[in-house]
Amino acid sequence: MKKHLVLLLFFLTGFVCISAKAQQQDSIMIRKIFDEALTQSECYENLRYLCSHIGGRLSGSKEAERAVEWGKSVMEGLHFDKVSLMPVQVPHWERGEKEQAYIINSKTGVKKEAAICALGGSVATSVAGIEAEVIEVKSFEELEKLGTNKVKGKIVFFNRPMDPTKISTFNAYGGAVNQRWAGASKAAKYGAVASVTRSMGLRIDNFPHAGSMSYVDTLPKIPAVAISTQGAEELHALLNLNGTAKLFIKTSCKTNPDVESFNVIGEIKGSEKPDEYIVVGGHLDSWDNGTGAHDDGAGCVQSMEVLRIFKALKYTPKHTIRVVLFMNEENGLRGGKEYAKQAKLKNETHIAALESDAGGFSPRGFSFEAPSWFTTSVQNYKPLLLPYGLYDFDGRGGGPDLSPLAEQGVPTIELIPDSQRYFDYHHTADDTFDKVSKRELELGAASMAALIYLIDNTAFH
Amino acid sequence: MKKHLVLLLFFLTGFVCISAKAQQQDSIMIRKIFDEALTQSECYENLRYLCSHIGGRLSGSKEAERAVEWGKSVMEGLHFDKVSLMPVQVPHWERGEKEQAYIINSKTGVKKEAAICALGGSVATSVAGIEAEVIEVKSFEELEKLGTNKVKGKIVFFNRPMDPTKISTFNAYGGAVNQRWAGASKAAKYGAVASVTRSMGLRIDNFPHAGSMSYVDTLPKIPAVAISTQGAEELHALLNLNGTAKLFIKTSCKTNPDVESFNVIGEIKGSEKPDEYIVVGGHLDSWDNGTGAHDDGAGCVQSMEVLRIFKALKYTPKHTIRVVLFMNEENGLRGGKEYAKQAKLKNETHIAALESDAGGFSPRGFSFEAPSWFTTSVQNYKPLLLPYGLYDFDGRGGGPDLSPLAEQGVPTIELIPDSQRYFDYHHTADDTFDKVSKRELELGAASMAALIYLIDNTAFH
Repeated sequence: MKKHLVLLLFFLTGFVCISAKAQQQDSIMIRKIFDEALTQSECYENLRYLCSHIGGRLSGSKEAERAVEWGKSVMEGLHFDKVSLMPVQVPHWERGEKEQAYIINSKTGVKKEAAICALGGSVATSVAGIEAEVIEVKSFEELEKLGTNKVKGKIVFFNRPMDPTKISTFNAYGGAVNQRWAGASKAAKYGAVASVTRSMGLRIDNFPHAGSMSYVDTLPKIPAVAISTQGAEELHALLNLNGTAKLFIKTSCKTNPDVESFNVIGEIKGSEKPDEYIVVGGHLDSWDNGTGAHDDGAGCVQSMEVLRIFKALKYTPKHTIRVVLFMNEENGLRGGKEYAKQAKLKNETHIAALESDAGGFSPRGFSFEAPSWFTTSVQNYKPLLLPYGLYDFDGRGGGPDLSPLAEQGVPTIELIPDSQRYFDYHHTADDTFDKVSKRELELGAASMAALIYLIDNTAFH
Repeated sequence: MKKHLVLLLFFLTGFVCISAKAQQQDSIMIRKIFDEALTQSECYENLRYLCSHIGGRLSGSKEAERAVEWGKSVMEGLHFDKVSLMPVQVPHWERGEKEQAYIINSKTGVKKEAAICALGGSVATSVAGIEAEVIEVKSFEELEKLGTNKVKGKIVFFNRPMDPTKISTFNAYGGAVNQRWAGASKAAKYGAVASVTRSMGLRIDNFPHAGSMSYVDTLPKIPAVAISTQGAEELHALLNLNGTAKLFIKTSCKTNPDVESFNVIGEIKGSEKPDEYIVVGGHLDSWDNGTGAHDDGAGCVQSMEVLRIFKALKYTPKHTIRVVLFMNEENGLRGGKEYAKQAKLKNETHIAALESDAGGFSPRGFSFEAPSWFTTSVQNYKPLLLPYGLYDFDGRGGGPDLSPLAEQGVPTIELIPDSQRYFDYHHTADDTFDKVSKRELELGAASMAALIYLIDNTAFH
């Protein structure tokens, strides 16, 4: 706490003391950072390799292992001062065979194939699959009102769409994702045999969206799947038409024992305060159905790019800057938890931490999970960052992998890219390298480097 | 200092005049506009039809004729108060056969196909095509220094890339496009037999970018083509390697006599000042190689959407709001000129005019070609528009089709979408419907509607 008070004083007095000259120097340095990123960046080609040669990399998979090796070798190739692996036990859930599903017209018996995927953490159906009547609900309240009488033996279809009127699609996601996360146990409580959730996307298409779910231990574990938005619309239309419909689903996913994996960590030593850290990171794992380009290969390659830019510009940071490629954000957050645990055990001082985990789109600003003095300090940088399209410094949130650090009082920040297309790709087979714009990715990396530079530098003005 | 005080007072009184109540009403109305656009919009499906069923629509083409009919019928279907066609004589340049080109290794004789396209307005090569030594330059100054001695009989290759360090890609375009527009005559002055310009794009790919060029009347007219950025890189590499390279190009484009076409105009009559107009528009014509999705089908469907939103919300504008789908922005600006000419002839009062011609991407703000009092007034709306991601009100430019109106003193505005991907598609075969995000298109339309509403309304506060 005392440490933070001292930091607070540093920041406050820092701002009073910012001379016009220092601001001008910062402005010149930020211009150099963007020039470097937009002309010499390696992050786009790094992302190509990660997505196209390694692919989807769910925790515990061979691909995740290869991604760890890749991250380490890229950092070593960039000649960081130190590159290391931090062991972490991760869940090992596997999808198994490609899922099958049919929407069945109860009146005619006609079957139509539907695009589904098992949700992460779900149990499988029996080998024969499950065929049952479908009951559609838009909310847990609606489900509760229906009760055991109407739900027992059926497949509950959670079909509340993401709200398209939310300007940030993350807010729309936040308003719908409880159906995916908690739907199965809510349905099991009333005797449902499976749960099917409308995919968390705004676009009507045929990609089912993966994502984590969780069971309540005291209730039966029933299979939980997501259906594509198009499939959801079709099922809804059939229920509207006939008042009844059946669904057949077959999945073979399973949860194996935990395995060892790693956070990949690289750092440049601080020249003045080597024992004080600024973290910049993304998460290395991704869902298995796509290749994790926007979620979150982008954040990984951008984070490494920050240090590459500093080295290229011969900028020696005052604090130690650490790139962390976190393992297991998608279905456990074990990497983020382990990092925070180790930081505490080693009594490491973290000045700030920044994550990019909202896609490689055109950057618009930063959001915060931080004490207000810290947020205000960063908001004061706005005039320096506005020429690069960074204007939004008002949101809440410091990045999922950093939340355990935030709980320890570390100021955490997340890059805010344009959110409009994120949930077109999020957790789908369509989250591939070709969906990322080279310039947008580079602008995000440069924005991160600019902010890290400012934080690293301001504490000493 | 005194002057600054006066300005400050002027600025502050602007704010004071807007009562809190009026601001709240505006805020509610803008929320309704965005809700309507994000849930009920027809602009995305309209764009699908225009791009996929009509396609590229260069002035004078059959497709441009069909686009005029389509625009009229969409507006009639929306039951605007008045829909009309304004005749305008337009150029009729045709590409002819698909262009052919080979990069020839002068030492080995090996030929490699290259992707080129004739520039709009160019003359054709002979039927046999042109084969000649290539001389590469980065600027007109460099060309001038080379002089007739080194240029005569050769193909001049203008290879100055767009500057990737410009944050707005439009600035990068502005810094390179003189090579495309004026290169041929500059080269012809020194006896060149043809000009080849590096495509106006930042992405390295194999799509040649079309676009207009112009000849100086007193110089020989030589064929002018654009080569894809990938082709430009290959040609440059070969010249670097061998010091010499040849190019073969064959084009069959031609300029036919002018033909009659139309601006398509729809309007909702103003309830209080029906004889005062606010224009909102885009341009209906596009290059022939793609399907004109971002450039500028997006602007057309967004403009029509503005009036659809007003009708759906039962908002009766105080001034007459006119949607104008301009013809011939790409190679003549005849539609924009004719509209301004007619406005002057009829002594029409135009309060303001807004164009969308920078792509259907996520909106970021508006730019202006307007008297400063007008720009300042609109900038005062910023707090109302910021929640929708609109923060940038500082740029210059009021839309190409509106420039003749601006010359008459009408305040003109252009929508500023995110520019990062625009020149990936601009004037290429890749400018197709699937490159447009439904939400981004709708957010642009809603932003335009919100601004038109504010302008329509504020004049009466």
